[in-house]
Amino acid sequence: MWPDRRVMDLFRIETPIVLAPMAGAGDAELAIAAAEAGALASLPSAMMSAEKAREQVQIIRQRVSAPINMNFFCHRPVEADDVAQAAWRRILEPYYLELGLDPATTVASPSRSPFDDAFCAVVEELRPEVVSFHFGLPEKRLLERVRATGARVISSATTVREALWLESRGVDAVIAQGAEAGGHRGMFLTTAIGEQPGTFALVPQVVDAVKVPVIACGGISDGRGIAAAFALGASAVQIGSAYLRCPEALTSALVREALKAGGDDSTVITNVLTGRPARGLQNRIIRELGPIAAAAPSFPHAAGALAPLKLAAEKRGRDDFTSLWAGQAIALGRDMPAAELTRELARSALACFRRMAP
Amino acid sequence: MWPDRRVMDLFRIETPIVLAPMAGAGDAELAIAAAEAGALASLPSAMMSAEKAREQVQIIRQRVSAPINMNFFCHRPVEADDVAQAAWRRILEPYYLELGLDPATTVASPSRSPFDDAFCAVVEELRPEVVSFHFGLPEKRLLERVRATGARVISSATTVREALWLESRGVDAVIAQGAEAGGHRGMFLTTAIGEQPGTFALVPQVVDAVKVPVIACGGISDGRGIAAAFALGASAVQIGSAYLRCPEALTSALVREALKAGGDDSTVITNVLTGRPARGLQNRIIRELGPIAAAAPSFPHAAGALAPLKLAAEKRGRDDFTSLWAGQAIALGRDMPAAELTRELARSALACFRRMAP
Repeated sequence: MWPDRRVMDLFRIETPIVLAPMAGAGDAELAIAAAEAGALASLPSAMMSAEKAREQVQIIRQRVSAPINMNFFCHRPVEADDVAQAAWRRILEPYYLELGLDPATTVASPSRSPFDDAFCAVVEELRPEVVSFHFGLPEKRLLERVRATGARVISSATTVREALWLESRGVDAVIAQGAEAGGHRGMFLTTAIGEQPGTFALVPQVVDAVKVPVIACGGISDGRGIAAAFALGASAVQIGSAYLRCPEALTSALVREALKAGGDDSTVITNVLTGRPARGLQNRIIRELGPIAAAAPSFPHAAGALAPLKLAAEKRGRDDFTSLWAGQAIALGRDMPAAELTRELARSALACFRRMAP
Repeated sequence: MWPDRRVMDLFRIETPIVLAPMAGAGDAELAIAAAEAGALASLPSAMMSAEKAREQVQIIRQRVSAPINMNFFCHRPVEADDVAQAAWRRILEPYYLELGLDPATTVASPSRSPFDDAFCAVVEELRPEVVSFHFGLPEKRLLERVRATGARVISSATTVREALWLESRGVDAVIAQGAEAGGHRGMFLTTAIGEQPGTFALVPQVVDAVKVPVIACGGISDGRGIAAAFALGASAVQIGSAYLRCPEALTSALVREALKAGGDDSTVITNVLTGRPARGLQNRIIRELGPIAAAAPSFPHAAGALAPLKLAAEKRGRDDFTSLWAGQAIALGRDMPAAELTRELARSALACFRRMAP
């Protein structure tokens, strides 16, 4: 039925859809629902502790017999720079005062640790069938330990050069992340946002450049998009934004409202929320300080000083400082259980192939 | 054979490909070659005088019996601002000196006049089957005269809002121009470059929003891209960059070399070359002053002061000040006669439909 089974065979999944691992927006529940409909169950582990990730994988294993994809960040960690932090706090001070907060307030901010020995031990223990990385690949020593577990290894490329780099280091498939994609850009060999190719241009050029199968990502939110990705040469798709309004997603009511109102031109790539370029719906902080602010501290340290503002504003029903990660096809998202959505995505993609058959 | 014939029927063409009108890069020869293979012959008339456009249409009429698309700009003309011009000249002065030019040098710069009574008279006289506009639509009075000739009228939308605006003014089809596209962004209701959707996200959302057929554009350079555009709901494609290396294109040897070397991440959207955002290969002026320079005078007045630099640098074999308009799929372009390329594009798109058939 599917014109290309390479990724389905590689991961042993029934539907060539990879649930995008969305740190903060999905956990075991969303992964289980997607897996029940044959997609690859991704567990975004980057913002979890090793213990939490272990617990989540165990929940998935108990509920479904399906391959699991554990996803990790692998940025090179940078210590928080006191001078940059102080400057950032000064820029944010008016917001603190407006919300009646002491500008020195701190609140616990979620961890965004890169893949390390502790995470690697969890992988060795739980043996997920797939391990996906964002921002490149971990150091060789860790990568070899992951590979020794038998896990398939994948990572995101935002350019042909990054795809070739990943392939040369032995990934089993490349995720071609077009500029339309929501959330953090996986870019790791470049910081030039303005050069990032859109999905339509990126996918066929990556397909031509590498021998491993390509998973298309960015702006794919319905069956038409899946069919189009296969036409461009992809062997599977990774879909995120379309799942954000599923009841199983962790999306808050406030964020759901924002997502529902999002249009084709509502998102931008910004660094103000975490320090690293990511696509999301525009909100007050992006409009007033961004989308790109030179003063935003390095990833993930921009987020710390925003956390008290986010908390206080959300209590007042405002998303002024909330990350509203979403891709440019967010408007195609639906309020629908994730398993049903996954089946509907596959069904409509297959219908699209039939409609186009000469 | 084609899954959607709406645009083929609308324009009475045999292949659902619109040769992108590329001002400065194509004339009657390229249009004739594309038309011979069944595509819509577009004549970029915006940088021609009314007389030159008339002569070019007559050449096409003599050589092929096929529909013609005359393309015009319809920006609101702005007088050159002396203060802005002087400031721009000051910024460019080091380049003048480096090239041994008097900074006050002027050379004749090609006209970029918006559609006006003179152009309209040419349309009334020559009755092209299709008239396409860029940067919106001309004033109502002129648009009605065009429509009275029986011409099909189309224009580019870069967002859903622009597509709805065009439809409400009675266009026969909308060109959905994704962010990947080379050359000037057709944007006319917004100036927010960072919000511009990629082709993958834009096309289905425009298709859902309007009743008229949609012509997809941006990053489409081979049969896979054509098939993908149809999967997304398009009824035709507009292709530009892929034709730039055809022998019939006006592309200079210098520019051909640059195009051949272009990769997926070689282009950016810049305003430094004309004053209006356009996508092209990065060269020295873009790298040193752009890609977006607040000091660039309004369209098209940024171009005037660059013209002497362009001329002098090109004489030395350098493209430092040359517009290298190209989309993000420029690397998929080929050195091939335009009729042969058009047939190959259609053939490979149809093969792609067959390959995907369940």
